[in-house]
Amino acid sequence: MLKAEIIAVGTELLMGQVVNTNATTISRFLNAQNIGTYYQTVVGDNPNRLLEQLKQSSQRSDIIAICGGLGPTQDDITKEVIATFLNDELVQHELSKQKIVLYFEKSGRIMSENNLKQSLILKKCQPLMNHNGFATGMFIQKNDVTYIVLPGPPRELSMMLETEVKPVLSKFTQEQLSSVLLRFADIGESLLAEKIEDIVSEQTNPTVAIYANPGLVDVRVTASGQTSQEANRLMQPVIMAIQNRLSEFYYGRDEETLEHVVVALLKQKQWSIATAESVTGGLCGAKLTQISGVSSVYCGGVVTYTNEMKQTILGVNESTLHQFGAISAECALEMAQNVKKLCQSDIGISFTGIADKTSVENKPSGRVYIGIATPTQQKVVELQLHRDRELNRQLAVQKGFIELRKMLLEV
Amino acid sequence: MLKAEIIAVGTELLMGQVVNTNATTISRFLNAQNIGTYYQTVVGDNPNRLLEQLKQSSQRSDIIAICGGLGPTQDDITKEVIATFLNDELVQHELSKQKIVLYFEKSGRIMSENNLKQSLILKKCQPLMNHNGFATGMFIQKNDVTYIVLPGPPRELSMMLETEVKPVLSKFTQEQLSSVLLRFADIGESLLAEKIEDIVSEQTNPTVAIYANPGLVDVRVTASGQTSQEANRLMQPVIMAIQNRLSEFYYGRDEETLEHVVVALLKQKQWSIATAESVTGGLCGAKLTQISGVSSVYCGGVVTYTNEMKQTILGVNESTLHQFGAISAECALEMAQNVKKLCQSDIGISFTGIADKTSVENKPSGRVYIGIATPTQQKVVELQLHRDRELNRQLAVQKGFIELRKMLLEV
Repeated sequence: MLKAEIIAVGTELLMGQVVNTNATTISRFLNAQNIGTYYQTVVGDNPNRLLEQLKQSSQRSDIIAICGGLGPTQDDITKEVIATFLNDELVQHELSKQKIVLYFEKSGRIMSENNLKQSLILKKCQPLMNHNGFATGMFIQKNDVTYIVLPGPPRELSMMLETEVKPVLSKFTQEQLSSVLLRFADIGESLLAEKIEDIVSEQTNPTVAIYANPGLVDVRVTASGQTSQEANRLMQPVIMAIQNRLSEFYYGRDEETLEHVVVALLKQKQWSIATAESVTGGLCGAKLTQISGVSSVYCGGVVTYTNEMKQTILGVNESTLHQFGAISAECALEMAQNVKKLCQSDIGISFTGIADKTSVENKPSGRVYIGIATPTQQKVVELQLHRDRELNRQLAVQKGFIELRKMLLEV
Repeated sequence: MLKAEIIAVGTELLMGQVVNTNATTISRFLNAQNIGTYYQTVVGDNPNRLLEQLKQSSQRSDIIAICGGLGPTQDDITKEVIATFLNDELVQHELSKQKIVLYFEKSGRIMSENNLKQSLILKKCQPLMNHNGFATGMFIQKNDVTYIVLPGPPRELSMMLETEVKPVLSKFTQEQLSSVLLRFADIGESLLAEKIEDIVSEQTNPTVAIYANPGLVDVRVTASGQTSQEANRLMQPVIMAIQNRLSEFYYGRDEETLEHVVVALLKQKQWSIATAESVTGGLCGAKLTQISGVSSVYCGGVVTYTNEMKQTILGVNESTLHQFGAISAECALEMAQNVKKLCQSDIGISFTGIADKTSVENKPSGRVYIGIATPTQQKVVELQLHRDRELNRQLAVQKGFIELRKMLLEV
């Protein structure tokens, strides 16, 4: 197995201003390519320390992924240091340069000379295009060591790994890899791990890895073979065993997020949906509209953040608010029913509650009610959340999609 | 300034299963104690690699914080390796042992011998109590190097830093540190860097660092002195110089996000706001409601994702949609004016456009119109965005807040 390590460059990481999610992303990516990571290191924007680190790393690893410090400012020293270390020089990458010049022309903004620094690359490298930004990446091989140079912004880095690094790396590993991400909701990481413990520990090819996100768990199954057919064949029984054992929690594969799954089901049924949001303030609508082409099933909705708005715009009964409060199952249900009527949609979904760590209307902090009204059913779900304000709101929307998906599958 | 580094131990970090937030927490903590972090390293649960890392780290740093691998299982090797490295032996820490024994007695669960492993400490150390768990931490000084050994679970680690490490470390730091984050909008990172290039390069105390986020740039000024007064005094002229030179782009300090600044201005003027969102699908409302207590100025609004909704819920004229299209300055302005009326708020803000890389209504992709209607003014801003769907939507909302802030400052 090839040995890799990661060097993240950035004083902001050493100051604790930014969490080093890039190291996690790269480790995960390499792992999926069957390449093991043995070290992750962070150094500041300091040429000497980066140089020293490169010397050490090149003596112990086959692959070194370096991220950060490709930007336009004085602090951005990564390319210069690598050029010094590898005894190469920096030249303009014409394609990247043109892209930058064109962007500034189109946007009517003034380009400074610094901006072009981002299109510099080592003479002896294979450039990696940046589809989400301007800093060009590099793939360099020297003395049996491979250097992969990546931009710091996570969106740019992830995209470059998938579209540029993956194809180049596949030449390395003579074996073919197949990998599937199985996605589960409504189950904790440790319980899921317990349920498939024997499958995980019995396997060496495919390997099974568990990744936990707040409220969701992903399981990656990766197999290697002489051909991708062989890899796929090896993977199938393990995928089926895991899916069978966890069928009630399974919702999608690979890029299928909960939003995608819900929108696909709505399209399949040709049902439209409208949102009525209080505690989530528009977050559910914002999530749905992340998906291109959602307008065929999502018409819109209302954000009724105050009690008055719940009455005037959405027509929630004053007596409901008086008797049960805005944070109640009754209010959630009325909101869902009324937004369905107001927007003439097939489904209404609503969120009302307290995301903060304070008690309101004698309801405990973190209490959220989700109302769902479909053409055939209606339902209210009570949640008790324990995280911070923003994560509680995210988890509430996620739970709304989980419940909606269940209802859509039942009819 | 004392030089520190962090070693996180755990194969789960190298697999990309867990994000290394502990390194961020420790860096931030050390920074607040005026101790600079120069390296963060991750090694797996491997005795040889940890031993090698300790050798290297002890040659270049004054303080080494080591976290993770203090648990009860076979994988947990940190204490054993440190004992070998420092040529010391492990002994039971009686207080910690009693705590573990008592816990198992009280909970009626059977204690395995492994559990007592967590109460082992080096003979020559100052034990650090764990108030959120069982693994005992250690503070060790040998040959002018300080070793701080911390548990891996974030809750245990944070608590131990605050309650146990802080008092011990305070003896170390002779100088005081002050730091301010200055926040700028509507200017690119490279142009900003150019404008203050001389200030950045002239300074050693305070230091000036530039951090870019999409659409926004932060500048951190950090000074050290004998007293915090001295540090503050050193910082002031540099802060003023930067603010003067970039006054038109400056919007806030430290924790003040654009949303915070806008909400604070609205509260100051006692003006309420309502949102009418098409392209952003609820994102503007979701951003505003990230702020606790926003309900005194944000009542809510509508998401009108289809043309029909723009007419039925929001009362946009059919002729406007027919003549100019939904993606037009005219539609944006009507949306802002009408949502203000509908919600009886003082201000209405609207977003309509195309976030995708496709052309709609003969309008170019990335075209967004923002409408703002205040009691005294109205305005439409045309944007041409060039990023992906989601970032375009984020940038549109950000620009809405920037424009709204300007209008609020003018009246």
